[in-house]
Amino acid sequence: MLRVLDLDESVKFYTDVMGLKETGRDASGRVYFKTHDERDHNSFIIRKADTAGLDCFAFKVLNNATLDELEGKLKDFGVTTERVPAGEMLETGERVRFKLPTEHVIELYAEKTDVGNGLGYTNPEAWLPDTKGINPIRMDHCLIYGPDIDANKKLFEEVLGFTLVERVKLEDGTTDLATWLTCSAKAHDIAMVRHGEPGKLHHVSFLLQSWEQVLRAADIMSMNRVSIDIGPTRHGVTRGTTIYFFDPSGNRLETFCGGYDFYPDMHPTTWTWDEVGAGVFYHDRKLNERFLTVVT
Amino acid sequence: MLRVLDLDESVKFYTDVMGLKETGRDASGRVYFKTHDERDHNSFIIRKADTAGLDCFAFKVLNNATLDELEGKLKDFGVTTERVPAGEMLETGERVRFKLPTEHVIELYAEKTDVGNGLGYTNPEAWLPDTKGINPIRMDHCLIYGPDIDANKKLFEEVLGFTLVERVKLEDGTTDLATWLTCSAKAHDIAMVRHGEPGKLHHVSFLLQSWEQVLRAADIMSMNRVSIDIGPTRHGVTRGTTIYFFDPSGNRLETFCGGYDFYPDMHPTTWTWDEVGAGVFYHDRKLNERFLTVVT
Amino acid sequence: MLRVLDLDESVKFYTDVMGLKETGRDASGRVYFKTHDERDHNSFIIRKADTAGLDCFAFKVLNNATLDELEGKLKDFGVTTERVPAGEMLETGERVRFKLPTEHVIELYAEKTDVGNGLGYTNPEAWLPDTKGINPIRMDHCLIYGPDIDANKKLFEEVLGFTLVERVKLEDGTTDLATWLTCSAKAHDIAMVRHGEPGKLHHVSFLLQSWEQVLRAADIMSMNRVSIDIGPTRHGVTRGTTIYFFDPSGNRLETFCGGYDFYPDMHPTTWTWDEVGAGVFYHDRKLNERFLTVVT
Amino acid sequence: MLRVLDLDESVKFYTDVMGLKETGRDASGRVYFKTHDERDHNSFIIRKADTAGLDCFAFKVLNNATLDELEGKLKDFGVTTERVPAGEMLETGERVRFKLPTEHVIELYAEKTDVGNGLGYTNPEAWLPDTKGINPIRMDHCLIYGPDIDANKKLFEEVLGFTLVERVKLEDGTTDLATWLTCSAKAHDIAMVRHGEPGKLHHVSFLLQSWEQVLRAADIMSMNRVSIDIGPTRHGVTRGTTIYFFDPSGNRLETFCGGYDFYPDMHPTTWTWDEVGAGVFYHDRKLNERFLTVVT
Repeated sequence: MLRVLDLDESVKFYTDVMGLKETGRDASGRVYFKTHDERDHNSFIIRKADTAGLDCFAFKVLNNATLDELEGKLKDFGVTTERVPAGEMLETGERVRFKLPTEHVIELYAEKTDVGNGLGYTNPEAWLPDTKGINPIRMDHCLIYGPDIDANKKLFEEVLGFTLVERVKLEDGTTDLATWLTCSAKAHDIAMVRHGEPGKLHHVSFLLQSWEQVLRAADIMSMNRVSIDIGPTRHGVTRGTTIYFFDPSGNRLETFCGGYDFYPDMHPTTWTWDEVGAGVFYHDRKLNERFLTVVT
Repeated sequence: MLRVLDLDESVKFYTDVMGLKETGRDASGRVYFKTHDERDHNSFIIRKADTAGLDCFAFKVLNNATLDELEGKLKDFGVTTERVPAGEMLETGERVRFKLPTEHVIELYAEKTDVGNGLGYTNPEAWLPDTKGINPIRMDHCLIYGPDIDANKKLFEEVLGFTLVERVKLEDGTTDLATWLTCSAKAHDIAMVRHGEPGKLHHVSFLLQSWEQVLRAADIMSMNRVSIDIGPTRHGVTRGTTIYFFDPSGNRLETFCGGYDFYPDMHPTTWTWDEVGAGVFYHDRKLNERFLTVVT
Repeated sequence: MLRVLDLDESVKFYTDVMGLKETGRDASGRVYFKTHDERDHNSFIIRKADTAGLDCFAFKVLNNATLDELEGKLKDFGVTTERVPAGEMLETGERVRFKLPTEHVIELYAEKTDVGNGLGYTNPEAWLPDTKGINPIRMDHCLIYGPDIDANKKLFEEVLGFTLVERVKLEDGTTDLATWLTCSAKAHDIAMVRHGEPGKLHHVSFLLQSWEQVLRAADIMSMNRVSIDIGPTRHGVTRGTTIYFFDPSGNRLETFCGGYDFYPDMHPTTWTWDEVGAGVFYHDRKLNERFLTVVT
Repeated sequence: MLRVLDLDESVKFYTDVMGLKETGRDASGRVYFKTHDERDHNSFIIRKADTAGLDCFAFKVLNNATLDELEGKLKDFGVTTERVPAGEMLETGERVRFKLPTEHVIELYAEKTDVGNGLGYTNPEAWLPDTKGINPIRMDHCLIYGPDIDANKKLFEEVLGFTLVERVKLEDGTTDLATWLTCSAKAHDIAMVRHGEPGKLHHVSFLLQSWEQVLRAADIMSMNRVSIDIGPTRHGVTRGTTIYFFDPSGNRLETFCGGYDFYPDMHPTTWTWDEVGAGVFYHDRKLNERFLTVVT
């Protein structure tokens, strides 16, 4: 859930340029979106606020038993949790809310209405025609910025069952500047960068299907005068291809494509400080000035 | 593990045309391969025999505790299991072997030596230059043919934790002609088609990275006079793109690319008998005569 | 200009599935189309008739002086020409009409109104959003069937300044089964196959931009239940990638992509009879039964 | 023909990274290259010098009669021409050399030995396996910098038969900052930018086949620590996709891909000064600081 400065402008951007599908609005002013290909009622939500940034990031768990079990584990780990009742968000079951050590709000939930991707579950066509804009496959991951990412990592690994996929070390060769963690076969489901200020968002990422779709996305951004931070290019980390760009409120978004599949038996990859540039932007092999400084 | 008729010819084919990397041979005559990008010592093995076909198909499990647990569950389910000692296969730990109701041999193992993909785990480049041939990313799945695929499905779901992703129904609207099952976020880790004769192989599939790599693979097949069954085309099932082709012994192989990611909360897709053609070959919307008849 | 059996169905097909833009209709019942990216008022025309097939194929020449000069050369070569007055076709200048030795009608013209591609000639965007269907870049070439293709070739080379790019030889090693000719840097602007019946059309071809667009085109054909003859695949001749398919009247169309650029100093390529399969369908390396028999 | 600072390092770069094929060296120290797919003996030549830059850029003409005719026209236009005898360059016929008003040396020639692309002219495969590096299709064009580009344009149009394809206007709305000219169906065969110093080179460009090959090229540059100026991105001018990068001597090179086909009846496109950024780098819509300043 993202905060935006102007709701109408943002709805127009996420609908016409990003090509998401608006699926509803609630009494508190939240606007709900899904990608056309996602099946659950919503995966991305915006609300008007005075400052841009991330309200919370959520993970769906297998079922309510898992939700209870994970809440128990969180409490055992010393984390304060809160239950948000079913229905507080449209078409969404009860949620367990808690704060990461970096002060980001995370939610877990087990139920969200399956509204389908418009193709049906019997003899579906391969894709939905007549969509607009960039039209990503799914909301994919986010990259958060905050101080104690070591404590975050410990919580994700020991409580939520995530696995470390890649990391960047600081100059001391020991401290993590950044870590990429997965709870699936994706190269990352969440990533975090060490940063002075807590609760910050670097980007929310949407998945594209091919490098040609990346070019098409960059073209659509240009046609719509969207501010591109960098890209199309490739990350060394995950090998994925990327464009970083900004929504009208200054929230950084990413179109991500590719990246290898990760299995829990795989050895994590480490990037040393002298090669952090190649890790982040593989072609230029150097960071641009905005990567470590511009967050919302 | 596949049986081939001529070992030298097959090694040459899998090395030069498929672009696999030979990683070893053992005293029993087995030749071990991995794709260049795979990290484990081997994922694909051939041995000389009088008839082509599948010796066994194996799944790696998380650790030895999981191996023990799954063996226990198999026995509880009434399946006879056998332990094959560590080292019987090169760089491979102890294996649990059992037969599916369709008489295919399946193996589970927890340990295989990580030999890496040649890029290292520190500051790796994005891919390995100077490879040969088709060079797939990984061995991906297989499609097996046999009589009681319902019993197979029950075993995979109830004992091994697989989930049904897609199915094709026969004319009666009830009986499954074919099922696709996953134990990951892949659209399928194994698939099966109802067939009179037990223990048959339809194809072993290798993953490619992009549709352009599919074209390149078809070109390489043509240059090397490889017999193409069908493709490049798209499957309706999984949405993946495909080429079916034959190794020198007549074993059908596939290059597979794309296909959606599957999560266990997703509703399975059903193809009805009248649309089975579109399910299998999305562009032609009809089966070719070989799909249901040519197996090894 | 193609003949179709049902005008409404055909307009719907060429608009919604092919993604052409209708630019006008005239009193004689002709419906005019261009691709979205073409700049001239029309490049493809259909009219209702009792049989499908090709009314004529036309080439634009540099200017009216060139039109006069080529008409003079045609007459000197013994060809009867006819002038069709400006305006007989919408937004089109005077045309010189003549018959090839294979009895196909060819027209030359110098003037057609530039209506633009919708992007303007000042600071254009890279492409036009919100188009429908396959949306090819341009009408590209046609392949005609008829008896005396040697006389055709002589006329195209000696009078109209075309160059031979590729040819397929019959079993005798001498006679041309087929020839591909160009008047530009394209691998072919017209092609012809030796065939008993005169005046026949094998296909009209439309250019696509990338192999991914070829996949998308095949998907759109499937969604719209368009009958695909063969493809996606590659031609050995020209190296281009292709789908052959049929319009609702049974006229074969092609989406063509790639193919090398040809310059007049380049040596032509010859395909021998035993490799004609690879020349036409590079992956399968054999002709399908329809290639030499189904024409309109 | 380019000047390089270190011949061995440059040969290694053009062979291993660019993937050109060295075809010979001559007594004067020139090293000759072609792309693997080009058929003529050479298209790109380097020689050791104290400064990087362009010795000359050459165009092949249809035959010796055309060479004579063009030399006559050049003289009539007031241009001093020089004949360089056949054989002065390896496998190359007589050349006509002259200086452009911007002081760049241009050569015309009619004869260069056809050494083929390794596939033969009978039943060729679709492409050559076992090549190295970026492996472009052909040397495509160059962009030169110098003062009087208006006089250049006049010469190319009126004497050599080129056509204006695109132009960028300066703030006055009248003066050309840059022009793109073609003598084929390519979007440009030469381009020029107004610049204080004469005889300067902005870049030499090599053609790639697809946007995926552009990504692969950028990856190869990163692996080989090649300095990338910008890209992968798209030009607004020509619509082509691009990477600008530097050879070891600091000569800027480009991999170019796509771009529309141009016919002489097409209206040229104009970019106004306020949109020059989008014209040059379509995604960023702004020039990088190096575009107008770094030349050799």
